[in-house]
Amino acid sequence: MNIDGRAWRTIWLEEGGGAVSVIDQTQLPHEFSICSLRSCEEVVDAIRRMVVRGAPLIGVTAAYGLMLALRKNPSDSSLTNAIAALNATRPTAVNLRWALERVFRKVSSLDYSERADVAKEEAFLIAEEDVAMCQAIGENGLELIQKLAINRSDYCASDPINILTHCNAGWLATVDWGTALAPIYKAFRAGLNIHVWVDETRPRNQGSSLTAYELACEGVPHTVIADNAGGYLMQKGQVDAVIVGADRVTATGDVCNKIGTYLKALACFDNGVPFYVALPSSTIDWSIGNGLQEIPIEVRSPMEVTHVNGIYQKGSGSSEIVNVQVCPDRTTAFNPAFDITPARLVAALITEKGVANASKDGLEELYTLAK
Amino acid sequence: MNIDGRAWRTIWLEEGGGAVSVIDQTQLPHEFSICSLRSCEEVVDAIRRMVVRGAPLIGVTAAYGLMLALRKNPSDSSLTNAIAALNATRPTAVNLRWALERVFRKVSSLDYSERADVAKEEAFLIAEEDVAMCQAIGENGLELIQKLAINRSDYCASDPINILTHCNAGWLATVDWGTALAPIYKAFRAGLNIHVWVDETRPRNQGSSLTAYELACEGVPHTVIADNAGGYLMQKGQVDAVIVGADRVTATGDVCNKIGTYLKALACFDNGVPFYVALPSSTIDWSIGNGLQEIPIEVRSPMEVTHVNGIYQKGSGSSEIVNVQVCPDRTTAFNPAFDITPARLVAALITEKGVANASKDGLEELYTLAK
Repeated sequence: MNIDGRAWRTIWLEEGGGAVSVIDQTQLPHEFSICSLRSCEEVVDAIRRMVVRGAPLIGVTAAYGLMLALRKNPSDSSLTNAIAALNATRPTAVNLRWALERVFRKVSSLDYSERADVAKEEAFLIAEEDVAMCQAIGENGLELIQKLAINRSDYCASDPINILTHCNAGWLATVDWGTALAPIYKAFRAGLNIHVWVDETRPRNQGSSLTAYELACEGVPHTVIADNAGGYLMQKGQVDAVIVGADRVTATGDVCNKIGTYLKALACFDNGVPFYVALPSSTIDWSIGNGLQEIPIEVRSPMEVTHVNGIYQKGSGSSEIVNVQVCPDRTTAFNPAFDITPARLVAALITEKGVANASKDGLEELYTLAK
Repeated sequence: MNIDGRAWRTIWLEEGGGAVSVIDQTQLPHEFSICSLRSCEEVVDAIRRMVVRGAPLIGVTAAYGLMLALRKNPSDSSLTNAIAALNATRPTAVNLRWALERVFRKVSSLDYSERADVAKEEAFLIAEEDVAMCQAIGENGLELIQKLAINRSDYCASDPINILTHCNAGWLATVDWGTALAPIYKAFRAGLNIHVWVDETRPRNQGSSLTAYELACEGVPHTVIADNAGGYLMQKGQVDAVIVGADRVTATGDVCNKIGTYLKALACFDNGVPFYVALPSSTIDWSIGNGLQEIPIEVRSPMEVTHVNGIYQKGSGSSEIVNVQVCPDRTTAFNPAFDITPARLVAALITEKGVANASKDGLEELYTLAK
């Protein structure tokens, strides 16, 4: 990823290994700041407050959180308490649980003295693998975008391939590259004429704040739209494909992703637009089939709906990030953070191992070894 | 309508008839203020800035605007210029054109000296008829809600009928009662246990600001949700019906309404939830069939997407209505204000004359006399 010409990652171990640095995503796009997490408690808080977010990045951050917990206290109870606290931060994404289990398996049978160092190595490995998987997702998705360009008779320099994306599944949601945005970055660098419709993604506006920020940093042409507008753009032939990320995909191909994803998938289906989901294998939950019945959907604070964060230009030329109330005082809100897109609406799953049908057979074919 | 125990309408002629008063909807829900419109130019500006909005109310306001123009200058050129200026404010809703044509037909063959007074009478009549039509829509919609209650075996005091609505089609969008909300107010007053899911309705937040305000004023239980959440609520069986208003309905039953309506209709269809559209006959455009091809869709300012209005609580205990920027500086937005819901997705049209199928036959049956 590229911010003002410099390469960044979203998370890295500080020198000495006593703390983990992350980009503070609650301040973007208005302020770029780094947040230093020095304990497991600080990691728990950062995940809960969405200083870091995005299923893959949450997994990596949690793995480092476990390392910090073990550095302070490597006992069995410290290990299980830290896992419980980290697991409880966000119930929906499966990468969190997957990353914690992976570190647990590595360290639980070790002597106390070795645990923190091995957790550090494993967290680092998870982060490195995430980068490699996202790159591979990008390559596999690039092929799909190239096919879209070939199949569209009017594709030309003045009439780009239009990809719509929901929420942020770019490098800010991972360690680097992203999932849904990786194919877009690859296509852009390969010289394809590409334009991205960015769903603002209420209520937390990850699209208008994070995805727009990322794409602007990379120079990829993009336009923010209200979440309501995607269906109309498809009706008017202005969307060639939708690519989104995922927080959990069931063994049968149901996709749990940011609230509102399902509505876009329905509009794709109604308009013959392919709906793609990009994900690393760590996002697949092989233990469940029916997403709607089996995936716990996180309900977040009503304040995320009734209030909005933004930058306020004061009369004096100075500005301030403020939180403003949109609803009347007496009104409450309900804020489920994810929904389920049934496999029947998904054109394909783009994974690091290749492109799969969103079905039990499609996934098993790709992932026989990964199970 | 009821605000703090007092009955209001959204628009009324001031004593002496030299000006028209309206509730300033740009300041709600944070501030209740009355705006006095003293000329046709001020009416044009008020419609454009959405001081008044909602297809039926725009029609009534424009009729009064014509009266104000004729009061100043009753000539033919004044008449045609005023109609052109008013018509150009909002291209999508058909009630505007319908109301202007109705006044034009009444006054165009009259002596100059009579025109303003006759325009006043006609505008008043349009407003009165709007109230009566909305009341009738409410009665007809009430029957549908009563049927929903009868058909739901688990309906009881603790498990209300859940109606989802998009945008604001309540009394603030009309002169009184509203279109989509009229059946809800009737049901509430009839003692039904009813709860409303209020789509916040980005980008202008008419749901979270206006619909929530109205329902709070009337004491109707309601919860604001992000526009993204409706599909999930339907998947979970938490929506018994959707009722929306309309800005234009074609002779074949296609519905043009606030952007995002189409996505809700798709979700209704996918989940077997009835999708109802409530409208007065003045919203039907008998001259067109295919909504997607023939209805001009207004594109509004990108600032409505990139910035949000809200109330900012300052440290000192004072508060201010401010406009904050959500997107990065370099990002642009696209802001189409309406979309088209094909007739095939509409369970029924609720009109003042009765409930119709969303089809050529269905509409013709109800409206043979209205054509």
